[in-house]
Amino acid sequence: MTLLSPMPIPAQQSSKVAALNLAGEWIFEMDGDAQPQRVVLAFNGDTLRGAVYGQSFVVSLAANRVQFSVGDFRWRGTVRGDSLVGWLGIAPDSSRWTGVRFRPPAAPRAFKVDPSTFPRAYSGTTAPVLRIAAGDTVHTTTLDAGGWGRGAFGARGNKRSPGGNPLTGPFYVEGAVPGDVLVVTLHRVRLNRDWAFSGTSLVETAIDPSYATERQTPATPPDNKWTLDTVALQGRLTAPSPALRDFTVPLSPFLGVVATAASTEYAPSSRESGSYGGNMESARLREGTTIHLPVSTMGAQLYLGDGHAAQGSGELTGDAMETSLDVSFTVAIKRWGFAELTRAEDATDIMSIGVAGSLDAAMRRASSDMARWLTTDYGLTASDVALVMGFALQFDIPDVVPPGFGVTARIPKAALRTLVRPTRK
Amino acid sequence: MTLLSPMPIPAQQSSKVAALNLAGEWIFEMDGDAQPQRVVLAFNGDTLRGAVYGQSFVVSLAANRVQFSVGDFRWRGTVRGDSLVGWLGIAPDSSRWTGVRFRPPAAPRAFKVDPSTFPRAYSGTTAPVLRIAAGDTVHTTTLDAGGWGRGAFGARGNKRSPGGNPLTGPFYVEGAVPGDVLVVTLHRVRLNRDWAFSGTSLVETAIDPSYATERQTPATPPDNKWTLDTVALQGRLTAPSPALRDFTVPLSPFLGVVATAASTEYAPSSRESGSYGGNMESARLREGTTIHLPVSTMGAQLYLGDGHAAQGSGELTGDAMETSLDVSFTVAIKRWGFAELTRAEDATDIMSIGVAGSLDAAMRRASSDMARWLTTDYGLTASDVALVMGFALQFDIPDVVPPGFGVTARIPKAALRTLVRPTRK
Amino acid sequence: MTLLSPMPIPAQQSSKVAALNLAGEWIFEMDGDAQPQRVVLAFNGDTLRGAVYGQSFVVSLAANRVQFSVGDFRWRGTVRGDSLVGWLGIAPDSSRWTGVRFRPPAAPRAFKVDPSTFPRAYSGTTAPVLRIAAGDTVHTTTLDAGGWGRGAFGARGNKRSPGGNPLTGPFYVEGAVPGDVLVVTLHRVRLNRDWAFSGTSLVETAIDPSYATERQTPATPPDNKWTLDTVALQGRLTAPSPALRDFTVPLSPFLGVVATAASTEYAPSSRESGSYGGNMESARLREGTTIHLPVSTMGAQLYLGDGHAAQGSGELTGDAMETSLDVSFTVAIKRWGFAELTRAEDATDIMSIGVAGSLDAAMRRASSDMARWLTTDYGLTASDVALVMGFALQFDIPDVVPPGFGVTARIPKAALRTLVRPTRK
Amino acid sequence: MTLLSPMPIPAQQSSKVAALNLAGEWIFEMDGDAQPQRVVLAFNGDTLRGAVYGQSFVVSLAANRVQFSVGDFRWRGTVRGDSLVGWLGIAPDSSRWTGVRFRPPAAPRAFKVDPSTFPRAYSGTTAPVLRIAAGDTVHTTTLDAGGWGRGAFGARGNKRSPGGNPLTGPFYVEGAVPGDVLVVTLHRVRLNRDWAFSGTSLVETAIDPSYATERQTPATPPDNKWTLDTVALQGRLTAPSPALRDFTVPLSPFLGVVATAASTEYAPSSRESGSYGGNMESARLREGTTIHLPVSTMGAQLYLGDGHAAQGSGELTGDAMETSLDVSFTVAIKRWGFAELTRAEDATDIMSIGVAGSLDAAMRRASSDMARWLTTDYGLTASDVALVMGFALQFDIPDVVPPGFGVTARIPKAALRTLVRPTRK
Repeated sequence: MTLLSPMPIPAQQSSKVAALNLAGEWIFEMDGDAQPQRVVLAFNGDTLRGAVYGQSFVVSLAANRVQFSVGDFRWRGTVRGDSLVGWLGIAPDSSRWTGVRFRPPAAPRAFKVDPSTFPRAYSGTTAPVLRIAAGDTVHTTTLDAGGWGRGAFGARGNKRSPGGNPLTGPFYVEGAVPGDVLVVTLHRVRLNRDWAFSGTSLVETAIDPSYATERQTPATPPDNKWTLDTVALQGRLTAPSPALRDFTVPLSPFLGVVATAASTEYAPSSRESGSYGGNMESARLREGTTIHLPVSTMGAQLYLGDGHAAQGSGELTGDAMETSLDVSFTVAIKRWGFAELTRAEDATDIMSIGVAGSLDAAMRRASSDMARWLTTDYGLTASDVALVMGFALQFDIPDVVPPGFGVTARIPKAALRTLVRPTRK
Repeated sequence: MTLLSPMPIPAQQSSKVAALNLAGEWIFEMDGDAQPQRVVLAFNGDTLRGAVYGQSFVVSLAANRVQFSVGDFRWRGTVRGDSLVGWLGIAPDSSRWTGVRFRPPAAPRAFKVDPSTFPRAYSGTTAPVLRIAAGDTVHTTTLDAGGWGRGAFGARGNKRSPGGNPLTGPFYVEGAVPGDVLVVTLHRVRLNRDWAFSGTSLVETAIDPSYATERQTPATPPDNKWTLDTVALQGRLTAPSPALRDFTVPLSPFLGVVATAASTEYAPSSRESGSYGGNMESARLREGTTIHLPVSTMGAQLYLGDGHAAQGSGELTGDAMETSLDVSFTVAIKRWGFAELTRAEDATDIMSIGVAGSLDAAMRRASSDMARWLTTDYGLTASDVALVMGFALQFDIPDVVPPGFGVTARIPKAALRTLVRPTRK
Repeated sequence: MTLLSPMPIPAQQSSKVAALNLAGEWIFEMDGDAQPQRVVLAFNGDTLRGAVYGQSFVVSLAANRVQFSVGDFRWRGTVRGDSLVGWLGIAPDSSRWTGVRFRPPAAPRAFKVDPSTFPRAYSGTTAPVLRIAAGDTVHTTTLDAGGWGRGAFGARGNKRSPGGNPLTGPFYVEGAVPGDVLVVTLHRVRLNRDWAFSGTSLVETAIDPSYATERQTPATPPDNKWTLDTVALQGRLTAPSPALRDFTVPLSPFLGVVATAASTEYAPSSRESGSYGGNMESARLREGTTIHLPVSTMGAQLYLGDGHAAQGSGELTGDAMETSLDVSFTVAIKRWGFAELTRAEDATDIMSIGVAGSLDAAMRRASSDMARWLTTDYGLTASDVALVMGFALQFDIPDVVPPGFGVTARIPKAALRTLVRPTRK
Repeated sequence: MTLLSPMPIPAQQSSKVAALNLAGEWIFEMDGDAQPQRVVLAFNGDTLRGAVYGQSFVVSLAANRVQFSVGDFRWRGTVRGDSLVGWLGIAPDSSRWTGVRFRPPAAPRAFKVDPSTFPRAYSGTTAPVLRIAAGDTVHTTTLDAGGWGRGAFGARGNKRSPGGNPLTGPFYVEGAVPGDVLVVTLHRVRLNRDWAFSGTSLVETAIDPSYATERQTPATPPDNKWTLDTVALQGRLTAPSPALRDFTVPLSPFLGVVATAASTEYAPSSRESGSYGGNMESARLREGTTIHLPVSTMGAQLYLGDGHAAQGSGELTGDAMETSLDVSFTVAIKRWGFAELTRAEDATDIMSIGVAGSLDAAMRRASSDMARWLTTDYGLTASDVALVMGFALQFDIPDVVPPGFGVTARIPKAALRTLVRPTRK
C-alpha cells in the first residue's frame, strides 16, 4: 500500500522555475464536469512533469503560461499565485478550467468536535462540521439510532435529533478527490452512557412465513432497555422477562455507520449502505480498526454514527444494542486507490465488506474483492488466490436487515504473513 | 430432550395380560402406505394403553384378539407371538396391517465395519452394510470424495470407488421410523493417511462475472495435492507455487456428508443436501459433535462420507482438503422428534444447519429453526427468542457450492446456561 | 377506490358556525415533527366533527377558539382567517402547531412546462418546477438517460444535463400529505425525436461467470445508436452489424422513472427504485396507464424521466432504447391510501410492481401486495385470493439491473370482472 | 441444428471391407467407466474412419482385427458379427472394452402404452416401460400429481399410484448416449377427464412473513376441485365461494414434468428439476412444443407426468389445476448436443428454461444459455447477442415452488427470422 500519508513536496527545484513554484499537488475542476481531479506536478531536472490518474505528461512553461496535452485534450492556462485558470479544448469544443493548489497543513492537528446538527443522509452537499487533512485526529461523539445522546435515560436533553440513524459529520478531508480511498483509523470507540435500547422481535427478512405465523406476539410489548456496565463491559436487560433474568451480553462497542458522501447529486438515507460504506453493521468496525472507504466527492466527507454496544450476527432484531459513543479517529488518503467497496483491517484480520440486495450477491462481491486484494497487494496468481481463500477465508454475516444485506470476507493476518512476496514488481 | 436411549420395558404387568405380553414398542405397517408407524403399548393397572404420534388410545383384549380406535380408524387384529395381523377400517374401506414387536438388544454393542461398496445417493432401498440399534457403536472408515481410501498417494489399491462423494453405509437403525430424529455422536473423526487433494480455482457461485473475466487462468493447472502432518495436524501443498511455499493450514478433520436416507421412492445424489442432512460441508461436524437428523424411512439408514482435513468458509474451491478418515460413532433415537432440518451440538454451541437454494433462504431456514428450538426446548417466548438470537447468535456460511447453499445459526451454550427454565410446564 | 377527485366542500352549514367557516380540508404541522397531517372538518348539524387518519373527533367552538382531543393529545387553537395556530399538549409536554386551510382550485387547469433544470434524485427539498392540484393536467417533456433532449442527433443544443437519469420535476401537488397515494394518469407518452441509444453488452447481473469468460468482447465497440421511425413505430440500429441488418424492434414508448419524493431527509439517486416508485423500468408505464405512488412528503413531488422507446424483459443491456419523450399527465389524490409499493393499471390489467434487492424478494413483495389488493378492494378471502392468483396472475421481470430488481404481478381485468363483490360490507 | 433424424447408413462401401461391414454407429463401453460412448465408423474410399465426441481417427483393419488410437489411448479389438471386443490401453494400464452396433429400426414405428407402474424419481436404473428409437411415436397417458388417472371423480379405480408426481416412463431411446440431446415433440397433450384439483393457499416462498401473518386462514378449508369443460376448454371451481361463483379459467393443458434420467447412481425426486429437465412447470410444454433435454444415461430414459389443465405464473398455490392427460410424442436424437439445460421451441418462440435454487440464479442460467444458443446456432457476436436479447427477449416465471425455481428466457421466432446468417462457416 502506498501514499497513506501527506504527499511530500519535491525537494529539488531548478532556480528558474522555482519562481513559478508550480511543483506540488493541485485540484483541477472543469466547467460542466462534476468530477474534480488531482494533478501532481513535479520537476525532473528542468522539466516539469504532471500526472493525473496514472497518466503522465510534460508541461510547457512560458512566463506565467502553462500548456500541456493529455490524450486528445489540450490544456492552456495562466498562473495566478496558487491558482491556474484556462481553457481545456477537445475539438471542436472547449471549456473553462481552474486549478487550485492543495497545501497540506504543516503538521498533524487534533480537533475536538461537539456536533449540534445530525444529518441522516450521505450527502455531498451538506455543510461540513469540520475541515481536516490527512494526519489530523478528531475527537467527537455519536448519537444513538434514535437520536439520543449521552446522559441518563429519560433526561430531556438527551434527545438531540429525530431518529433514523442521525450522523456525526460530515468531516471534509482537504485534498481527497473522487477515485481516492479514505483511510480512517478508529483510535477510540467507547461507551459514554449506561443505557441502550434494542429491538425485541426478529426482522421479517430473517424468518420464514411459517415461523412468523406460529410465533405468539406478546400482548404487551417487552421492555427494550438495556443497562450497560461500562467498566466490566457487560449488558443486561433493564426489566428482563423471568427467563432472561440472568442473560448477560459481553459488550464490544462499534459504529454501525462509517461512510463517505455518496454523491453531490443524490444522498442515500443513513439506513443504506453501498460502495461508499454506510450502514454496514459490522461489529468489526470498532476501536483499533482501520477502514478503507471509496471517495466519491471532493473532500470525501466522512460520516459516523449508529453506535452499538453489542450485536449478534445479522442485527436480527432490526436494532442492535443502540447507544451513544465517544469516538476518536485519524484520516489518511490513499491517492487513486479506486476501490469498489469498503475494506477494513484490525490486529488480526483483513476484511472485504460486501453489501448488496441479497446475501448471495453480497458474498460474491466480498469474495471477488478479496480475490482482487490478494492479487494486487500480495502478488498472488489466480490459483494462489483460490487456495488461500479456500482454506483461510471466513465469511461473517453482519447484516440481514434491508435495504443492504452484508457478508464480510475475512482473512487472518497470520495466514497472510506466510505468503512469499514476489522479489520484484 | 427426551427418549434418546433405548426405551425401557414397563416393569409391572398384571398376571392375566402378562401372558399376552403385548407391552412394549411395535412397528405397524399398512398395505398401500409407505409410512410405517411406531406404536407403544403399556399397562396402566389392567388397562392396556397405546400411543402413536402423541395420540393415546385404549386396547380391548379378548383371548388373542386386540381391538382399538384412533380417530375414525378402527383396528382389529390377532396376536401371533411377536406379531400382530389384522384389518384397519375406515368406512367404506379397509386394508390389511401387520405389527412387529421391536426388541432392542439387551446391551449396547460395538461393531467394526470395513466397507466394500460405496453408494453415491441417499437411498432408502440400498442394502444396509450393517443393522444396529440405539446405543451401539460403530468403527469404520470413509473414502475421500474421489473414491480413494487410506494408503500412500498413488498406490493402486487406494482407488476403491468412482468419484462423486462415495459414502460409507447405509447403517440401518432398528426401531427408527419416519418422524423420529436420529442422534449421531461422532466419537472419533481422524485422519488415516498423509495426503489430500483440493480444488485450485474459485467456484463460479462465489465470484462476480467481472472477476471471472479478469483472472488469469494458469496455462498449466497447479498441483492440487496436500501433504498432511497427521500428528501436528498441519497441511501444506505438496508442490506449492513460490508464493505459497510457507502456506500452512491447521487441520481439523470433519465429515462433509452425514445423512439419513431421503426416501424409498427417490434417492438424491451424495452431492445434495436437504432435510435429511447430506453434503452440508459444515466444519463443525467433527470429533465430539452430536448430530440430529430427521428420519424419513424405516431404519433411518445412516450414510457418512466426504471427509475433509480442513476447509475455509463456503468450500470456495469446490473441493475442500479431501481425504479418507477413520470414524467411530454411536446412534440414539429421539422418538417422534419431527425435525425439519439438521441440528448439531458440540462442547460449546448448539447449531441449526440451514440448507437451501440460496444463502438468503438458508439463513431464514436456520434462524427460523433456531427460534423454534429455543421456543420448544428452552421455554422462551417470542420476544425472549428474539433477544437471545439478536445478541448471542452467530451465522456461519459452510457451503456456497451448488446445489445446496448452507448457513448455520449457532448459539453458544454459555449464553443458554444463563436462561432460566420455566419451573413447570 | 375512493376520493380520487378533489374533495367536495360540505354544502350545508348552520348560519352561526358558517361565520367561522372552518369546514373543509386542513393541513396541520407540528413543531419538531416532519410529518404534516391532513385534517378534515365537517358539520353534522351544528356539531363540527374532524377526521384525521381515520380517527374522528368533535371540535368545541367558542368565539374564534377551537379545542379538541384525539387519544391522549389535546389540541387548542385560535382561528385566524384560513389559519389555525395553537398548542398541542400531551402531558407533560406541549408543542406549537399550525393549521392551514387547503383550498383546491375551482376547476381543473392545464399547464405546459418546458423544464430547464433536471434533478437526479428523488428529493423532498428540491424547488418544485410547478405547483399543481388534483385534476390538473401537465404537458411536458423528458430528457433521455444521458441528458439529451429533443432534436437531431449530434445537435449541440440537445445536451441539457449531465447523464444519469436527469428528471423532469418535481411537480408539487397541493394537498397531498404523507400517507396519501398519488394517482398519475399518463395521457400521452410519445416519441419526440428520431434517434435513441442503448447498451451493447449484457449486464453482469444477468449472466453467469462462465458465459462472461466465454464471450468475445469486440475490439471496436459496436455503434449503439438507433434510428426511430416515429410514425410506423419501429426502431433499427443506425449502423448495424451484418447479422442485425434487418433487425427491427417495435416501439412502445414508456417512462423508466415515475416517482414521488422519497423523503425530506435523504434523496435516493434517480437510478434507485423503492416504495416511492423510481427507476422501475416497467414497459407498462406508457400512454394510457394510471400509476399509484405512495406519498412520503408534503406535496408528493412527482418526478418523471428515463424515457425508453422500447425494451425487452429486464433491461438486459443496462440501457434500454433511451430517448426523449413528450408527456402529458393528470394527477389525483387518494387520501390516506397507505400503499407500500407502486401499483398501476391500464386497459387490460392491474399490476403490483415489486422492487427489491433480488428477484426473489421482489416477487414476494409483488405477490404479497397483490394479495392485499385483492383482499381490500375486491373483498376476497385468503383462499379466494390464492385461487385467483394461482390461475390468473402473470409475473413480468422488468428490471435486472442493480440496485433494484423488479418483478411485476399482473392480473387481467377480464378475470377481475368475474368476481362477485360482497353485497354489503 | 443437425442429426435430428436416424443417422443414414453410408451408401458406398468398397467390396473388400464390405465383408467386415463395420460402417455405421456403435456404442462402446469400457470396464470401470460409467459413461458409454457413441463411435461412428464410415468409409472414405477404402479408408475406414471413426469419430467420437468430434475427434476423428483412422481404423486399421486386418482380417477380423481392428486397431486405432485416439490421443494417448490405444484400442485393439476383434470383430464378432455386430460386436467388437478388445483391450483399451493407456500405459501402464489397460481395460476391456466392448462395442455393439446400433441398428436403428428400418422405419418409424407407433406404440400405444397403457402404463401400470408409476415411478416417482428420474432414475437411470428403473426398468423401461418401452424401448423406442428416433422417429418412433408413442401414445400414452399420465396420472395427475396425486396418482389419479382418467375416469369420473371419486371412482375407486382412478387411484393408480401414491401421490407425489407419479410418472409415465421411462421410455428407453435406443442409441442415445450421455452427451446427446433428446428431442421430444409433443404431438398431443389433451385432457382426458372432466375434473382436476388445485392448492387453495399461496405457497410460503411466494409471500412475505407479514402477509402470512395478516391472512385469515379459513376455519373449513375450501373445496379444491375443478370441473373441466374439455370441449370449450374452460375450468370452474366445482363448489366455489360466493365471490368466485363466476370465476372461469381458460384451459391449456401441459406437462409439469418432462425429464430424462439424471443418473444411474442417484435418482432425484419427481418434484425436482435440474439439467435433466424435470418438474419445470412451464405452461409452454404443451401440444405442439418440441423439448430438448440433455441425456445423462444410456438410453436417455424419458419420463412424463404432472399434467396441468391450467396454471398462472409460478404455480402459486403449490398445485396447479392437476389432472390426467392423453399424450403422444415423437423422439429424435441430437448427437453430441452437449446441452446444459432444457430448451424448447413452439410455433412462435424459442426458450431456455433456467432452473436453480433462486429466481436470480435461474434467470442468469436462462439468459446465459440463450446467449450461447444465439452465438452457436445463429452465428451472432457478443454484442449482436446483447442487442437481440436486450430488445426481443421476454422472461417468464413458471415456478416459485421449491426446490427448483424457474425462469424461462424466450425469444420470438419473428425476431430470429430477421437475423442474417453468416454466409459460410
